[in-house]
Amino acid sequence: MVQGEAKAEGARPGEPRPIRRVAADLGVPDEHVLVYGHGKAKIDLDYLRSLPERDSKLVLVTAISPTPAGEGKTTTSIGLADGLARLGKRPVLALREPSMGPVFGIKGGAVGGGRAQVTPGDEINLHFTGDFAAIAEANNLLAAMADNALHFGTHDIDPRTVAIRRSIDMNDRSLRDVVIGLGGRLGGVTRESGFDITAASQVMATFCMADSLDDLRERLGRIVVGRSSAGDSVTAADLGAVGAMTAILKDALAPNLVQTLEGNPALVHGGPFANIAHGTNSVIATKAALKLGDVAVTEAGFGADLGAEKFFDIIGQTAGIAPDLTVVVATVRALKYHGGVALADLEEENAAAVRAGAVNLRRHCENLTEVFAQPVLVAVNRFAADTEAEIAAVRESVADLGIDVVLTDHFGRGGEGALDFADAVVKSLAKPSIAKSAYSLADSLEDKARAVVTRVYRGADVVFEPAAARELRRLEESGWGELPVCMAKTQYSFSTDPKALGAPEGFTVPIREVRLSAGAGFVVLISGSIMTMPGLPKRPSACDIDVVDGVIGGMH
Amino acid sequence: MVQGEAKAEGARPGEPRPIRRVAADLGVPDEHVLVYGHGKAKIDLDYLRSLPERDSKLVLVTAISPTPAGEGKTTTSIGLADGLARLGKRPVLALREPSMGPVFGIKGGAVGGGRAQVTPGDEINLHFTGDFAAIAEANNLLAAMADNALHFGTHDIDPRTVAIRRSIDMNDRSLRDVVIGLGGRLGGVTRESGFDITAASQVMATFCMADSLDDLRERLGRIVVGRSSAGDSVTAADLGAVGAMTAILKDALAPNLVQTLEGNPALVHGGPFANIAHGTNSVIATKAALKLGDVAVTEAGFGADLGAEKFFDIIGQTAGIAPDLTVVVATVRALKYHGGVALADLEEENAAAVRAGAVNLRRHCENLTEVFAQPVLVAVNRFAADTEAEIAAVRESVADLGIDVVLTDHFGRGGEGALDFADAVVKSLAKPSIAKSAYSLADSLEDKARAVVTRVYRGADVVFEPAAARELRRLEESGWGELPVCMAKTQYSFSTDPKALGAPEGFTVPIREVRLSAGAGFVVLISGSIMTMPGLPKRPSACDIDVVDGVIGGMH
Repeated sequence: MVQGEAKAEGARPGEPRPIRRVAADLGVPDEHVLVYGHGKAKIDLDYLRSLPERDSKLVLVTAISPTPAGEGKTTTSIGLADGLARLGKRPVLALREPSMGPVFGIKGGAVGGGRAQVTPGDEINLHFTGDFAAIAEANNLLAAMADNALHFGTHDIDPRTVAIRRSIDMNDRSLRDVVIGLGGRLGGVTRESGFDITAASQVMATFCMADSLDDLRERLGRIVVGRSSAGDSVTAADLGAVGAMTAILKDALAPNLVQTLEGNPALVHGGPFANIAHGTNSVIATKAALKLGDVAVTEAGFGADLGAEKFFDIIGQTAGIAPDLTVVVATVRALKYHGGVALADLEEENAAAVRAGAVNLRRHCENLTEVFAQPVLVAVNRFAADTEAEIAAVRESVADLGIDVVLTDHFGRGGEGALDFADAVVKSLAKPSIAKSAYSLADSLEDKARAVVTRVYRGADVVFEPAAARELRRLEESGWGELPVCMAKTQYSFSTDPKALGAPEGFTVPIREVRLSAGAGFVVLISGSIMTMPGLPKRPSACDIDVVDGVIGGMH
Repeated sequence: MVQGEAKAEGARPGEPRPIRRVAADLGVPDEHVLVYGHGKAKIDLDYLRSLPERDSKLVLVTAISPTPAGEGKTTTSIGLADGLARLGKRPVLALREPSMGPVFGIKGGAVGGGRAQVTPGDEINLHFTGDFAAIAEANNLLAAMADNALHFGTHDIDPRTVAIRRSIDMNDRSLRDVVIGLGGRLGGVTRESGFDITAASQVMATFCMADSLDDLRERLGRIVVGRSSAGDSVTAADLGAVGAMTAILKDALAPNLVQTLEGNPALVHGGPFANIAHGTNSVIATKAALKLGDVAVTEAGFGADLGAEKFFDIIGQTAGIAPDLTVVVATVRALKYHGGVALADLEEENAAAVRAGAVNLRRHCENLTEVFAQPVLVAVNRFAADTEAEIAAVRESVADLGIDVVLTDHFGRGGEGALDFADAVVKSLAKPSIAKSAYSLADSLEDKARAVVTRVYRGADVVFEPAAARELRRLEESGWGELPVCMAKTQYSFSTDPKALGAPEGFTVPIREVRLSAGAGFVVLISGSIMTMPGLPKRPSACDIDVVDGVIGGMH
């Protein structure tokens, strides 16, 4: 069975292995495995820290610019791990944990699909081990303490500068823009504010960049809540919130262990946005995967211009993790879409459209090899309708770059369907590799942005609107100039126009807003309007979910 | 050591028993124990349902009207269980799970104190097994779906009637009264709303009254979200939210097992307010305690006029659980406070003040024996400063009612200090007992309220303000007349004046507002203003909390 032939069957396999067994196979002693309900566990942080570094390899899975046709980055990561295991490797996945809110909106869960899934899917898609709830609560404690400081006048904070928003793991458009502190003198100071979905909160980004509990504590203390009347930053540390926030996050920081449908280990931990944040699972989980296995497989959000760029430039330069191979996931369908074919016509053979759309794939591949100096492999996630001519078109598009294209059918056949893919990965990993960044941390913030825009997006230039330019200068002057930049733009195009598919050129990237994410350790540069609180659609998918005889149905 | 001699040492005992062992001692097979992190587990609901009823006894622990001097209801419940275990009984505690928000405000945790605690205290006080987060999320999904229905116009709901508020487990006064749906056409319908702390949400009350997952699903469907333009109720079922809400709550509904410092089992599950809700742990946990042990010990919120009244009238009449003995907890200090002594002077001997204040204890005892037909035992939670003369005054105050007064020092000495108390409980339980209610469900809502006010509070009458009277009539006409009533008034007095300590008389109870809690299955009658979203104090206790070397400190 390949994708398109049958629907995903949902993550309800016959018999998953006991999670303690999965941990034991990784060599984790039982006393360091904290089981959380059915088939989920956390691995003790102190134990992980005590493990030596080993000569393991990291594979980064990224993709072409996303399309409504679907690429399947998560299924490809899972399929690769299952394939590697069949080749005798000891792979460990490191994946983002899904946000619950969108499950009730339009999208299905984020645990893979077909025979390439992590399990228990329903639980991972809902509360999992409570990490998202803890992150929202730490964020909301900080927000409550900030408003409390305004209410009692205990700290000099200008209410108009309060930057911290509350968070909730729900698609709830009515909370995007709100007025709080109404109801009279006892109800706090009235001001405009809003809620972000938890994945978009600064505490989420901070959590995912932290290397240890102490590092998390330090980072949380740097989060800027607002400014004093004199314009100085007021931080979470100034409010005395840091210890309590760390206490709330203490257990959450230990990475979560689950397994693929084929019983291979997956650390699913942390889930930041890939536009206003860096879009990758926690640094702790990736480092743990590298210590526990011989090949760690991780993924980066959206296309390679966003997720992979941030992996090399932010994670690579500040957390000291570098991939040994980058896999770019594409589908024939998605390339046809980039080539101008309408969604409804994607089933029809159209090699010319594949060729036209493959300029998107090619540019991502060039960036990865030329800017980031990575070995690259293209994985085509197979669908039943794909033809030989179309696949040949994909191969041709990157042949002169020396990049191999492998087909994989993990969706339909699990690890068995990903054997060629896994074999190509093993061969690549046998060769030495390096990874570079698009800019140096010593560059100015503006030059860093320019490097990403001109070298990775291949735009003409970056342009800062006046308010953004002022804020950028202020941050440089306040000593934040050595942070990496985190670009927030549409994921659908290299440019800022979501309709400019393929490989647009000549565009400029206007930066409208600059936000310091001091806890995470980057400066967010926002182009256009980035939605940090999604809404529900007219008919929410929540309407299809039910529990019958104790089993959740309709959550796909 | 007795209370007052030394501070509580915090819940960090040497070596708690493995929680699987605690479960095994209760006879729960390992496959029905879902471990959640350190020392916490959930017990499978299907397994619990499969167990036969047994001839076990239920002890309800309640108290005099609460004072700032402290009574120690939770420590007394825990001490009783530890004492019973030392007498060879198989006690199982059923307690409310604490709300996290107040931990960061002014109060310490809610896991007992001294040597009478449940453990792991830090974790129970924070996320525990995620139940509160799940309850907030189910509530907030319903709220988001209600506002989504307004936004898209998919249902006929008058925006001015939307009754569902969002919830968050945080003390955050700025969220009490808010305006949501700002930011233009894409931001939803602008309207006034607010947030309640999770413990005060209607989903919490509903969750705690549910008897099974199917029953929960039914109850959630009855929650009234708002009214149509014609005035008809629009429910969670009408919005199609029920299946998804049930999915969110599925795992949370299984009761949580932890242990006392002495290793005795405690089911800590559900934590509704005791004014706008019924103030007792989940029905599921109490029934499970009765199936798993030979003596179940549970507590009811606030004084006996609130928590115990609701236990007999709401739980007793609708969930079919009746106590076999009611313990009324008092302290000499608190009785002195009821007798008019200032907080600062409570250490001084004053038997006359004890006698004066004991009218409060006596009235609660009379209610329990006369109205609810219960065997009653008074437990005096000992402090170092208590004198023989003062304790004699307590004994005298209820002697003619045939009620025994026992001293207990579980705070200082654990179960060893509660042996006399436990022995008195065992002796009482050996005798047959009954339990009655203050009214019949067939009475009108107004007559039910009158019964509580005149028979339990001993006020002159209940008086409904015009809007409340209209709503009461509307509910009767809509078929809700057979529900029990849930009185929301100050906990500090039998009357509605928090300063009227002791045993006030001649007052009336004015009902300002009537709220249907259709999911929980009661009609809430509100006198005065009931705070459903606490605030943080000027210096939040969060400022004292920190994590050092991976250990949480300052959370007491």
